[in-house]
Amino acid sequence: MTGEEVKEPKEQQEVTEAKEPEICYKAIVLSGVGGYDKVKVEVKKGVPALKSDEILVRVQACGLNFSDLLVRQGAFGKHHSLGTECAGVIEAIGDLVIDRKVGDKIIMMNIDGGLWTELVVTTVNCTYLMPDGMSFQEAAAISVNYAAAYMMIYDYANLRPNQSILIHMAAGGVGIAATQLCKLVHDVTIFGTASPSKHETIKENGVAYPIDYTTLDYAEEVRKISPKGVDIVLDPLGGADDSKGFGLLKSLGKLVLYGSANQVTAPKRSSLAAAKVWWHKFNIDALQLINSNKAVCGFHLGRTDPDHVAEVIRKLISLYKEGKIKPKVDSVWSFEQVGDAMKHMQEHKNIGKIILVPEVKTTDATTGN
Amino acid sequence: MTGEEVKEPKEQQEVTEAKEPEICYKAIVLSGVGGYDKVKVEVKKGVPALKSDEILVRVQACGLNFSDLLVRQGAFGKHHSLGTECAGVIEAIGDLVIDRKVGDKIIMMNIDGGLWTELVVTTVNCTYLMPDGMSFQEAAAISVNYAAAYMMIYDYANLRPNQSILIHMAAGGVGIAATQLCKLVHDVTIFGTASPSKHETIKENGVAYPIDYTTLDYAEEVRKISPKGVDIVLDPLGGADDSKGFGLLKSLGKLVLYGSANQVTAPKRSSLAAAKVWWHKFNIDALQLINSNKAVCGFHLGRTDPDHVAEVIRKLISLYKEGKIKPKVDSVWSFEQVGDAMKHMQEHKNIGKIILVPEVKTTDATTGN
Repeated sequence: MTGEEVKEPKEQQEVTEAKEPEICYKAIVLSGVGGYDKVKVEVKKGVPALKSDEILVRVQACGLNFSDLLVRQGAFGKHHSLGTECAGVIEAIGDLVIDRKVGDKIIMMNIDGGLWTELVVTTVNCTYLMPDGMSFQEAAAISVNYAAAYMMIYDYANLRPNQSILIHMAAGGVGIAATQLCKLVHDVTIFGTASPSKHETIKENGVAYPIDYTTLDYAEEVRKISPKGVDIVLDPLGGADDSKGFGLLKSLGKLVLYGSANQVTAPKRSSLAAAKVWWHKFNIDALQLINSNKAVCGFHLGRTDPDHVAEVIRKLISLYKEGKIKPKVDSVWSFEQVGDAMKHMQEHKNIGKIILVPEVKTTDATTGN
Repeated sequence: MTGEEVKEPKEQQEVTEAKEPEICYKAIVLSGVGGYDKVKVEVKKGVPALKSDEILVRVQACGLNFSDLLVRQGAFGKHHSLGTECAGVIEAIGDLVIDRKVGDKIIMMNIDGGLWTELVVTTVNCTYLMPDGMSFQEAAAISVNYAAAYMMIYDYANLRPNQSILIHMAAGGVGIAATQLCKLVHDVTIFGTASPSKHETIKENGVAYPIDYTTLDYAEEVRKISPKGVDIVLDPLGGADDSKGFGLLKSLGKLVLYGSANQVTAPKRSSLAAAKVWWHKFNIDALQLINSNKAVCGFHLGRTDPDHVAEVIRKLISLYKEGKIKPKVDSVWSFEQVGDAMKHMQEHKNIGKIILVPEVKTTDATTGN
């Protein structure tokens, strides 16, 4: 190695720096699993590399989901990434990309996470063009929650006219989406649980009978209105609530299980809460199912055929364009506030979707979009 | 009490007898629970009494169902009656009956049994007018099997275009009905199990891939054609087959359980077969269901809302009129041959519906209608 050879690269580097200053971008990462303090904003350097079939997206808004709380707590192991949905603008495209162009506004979903970042590289098949009139915040709120609600209501529960449904956490992201999607079917009676301060909003959204689950027995409240029970229960709670929901079903009724929120009682994983859920865990055998003449459905978005998910999201975008669904944004938080945003969700304070934005937020957290 | 008073009723009785000779009619009854010998034809005397809202029906044909085998074996206790469906002609109506007249041909279903009889009294709401062109044998075959298949496929499984289904016992009453009802949806792929001698018939009925379950592993056979499995499994078998069916489901797939045929291996209840089914019994908890992203539905016709059953039967009659469904009669047996007819079903020899008729049968048991 000669002195000249060492010098040359240094010169080149200086020239490059002079032409184009190194780009930095923010991303939300986990420094470990546990409480809110494990979530950090990291500044990354350099534009991510782009393959010929990929696109580079500048993210404008991200959606926070309950699954992100579970990822942070380590419920899925230590190596899961946060952030399964966002919306942004295409900043560059690979040579072989034909159906997207620079400047396109897109919705993105990736169930494996990694979307809470200012700049992201992805393939086209994870993206959907945003329709006219849709805000970035709405775009960051329409994929995960609405797709889950859609598949639970239409693929599993097969909701039809004159039926009834109990939606737990009716003010949450899935709850708001599910209520709007139920309203697409004629004469459906919607029961929804939420704390009293949220009742007005969920009623406006379509819930006929808001139930204060914090002070009342929701099963008793449902039976006061509908003594035979309901046709469908959407249940993200787990534990003893699963059996209670099953008991509330009419003949041919469906209990759709999609979570275990009862297990998320504290910032960190709670052994006591987990034990309680486990102790009360819903368990059923073939004969009990036949004799009760009811169905139990387990839903897991991450284990759903990706082609079907894509088909559902395209359907949801059509419904949005027709004015039949509209995401409700609860509040907007900057990346740096992600811990507080998670706390807001975990303490069940939100009504609708919690949005994270890379820039320092410009709207008040309580007024939303 | 005087001599005159005693004499008067005697005279009245003699007069009645002279006017109208006592009517006798046959009914199939159980002399106990157990094997084929417990089923007897009893001759009853006198026309059953008719209330003002009831009708008297002369039965022309009755349907044999798997549940009748279970009733005979005592699976539901000692006091259940045989015979849940039949067809016949109205012979008399009560004063308050307005929507039926003498001579009407009707389909009857009563999940509590008691319809294997020449004369039966019932209320109008258990009956449906037979459409033109429907034979009594078809009419005795369209309610129980088709209603069960309809609700399993459309209420529970929510069959849609391009989906796939595995129908066990595809040559049985429910299997034939289910296949025809699946064909109403576009581009559905139907797998059906049956012994090889029945393959041609079930193929004609709509099964794309008949599977010889007697010599092959049906799950392997399905995966050869459809590596990802199927969207729906209709399972009347119970025991180890339930888990096998669950394993065959795609994401968002539905296992519909509606029986435990594996338990009916001998004329009498078999403790060994019951123990085997119990040992392999399908059991699942909430977390397993969510993680597998699948559903399990238990179907029990007897525990279904009667108004919904009636709605479904009316729908089935419309489908028959439109030529979209047509019951397949396997064979016709006289009441006196009921034991042999039951044996024929229990040994899985039938292709389609087994019919019982009060008169000595005029058709050959193997040629049917």
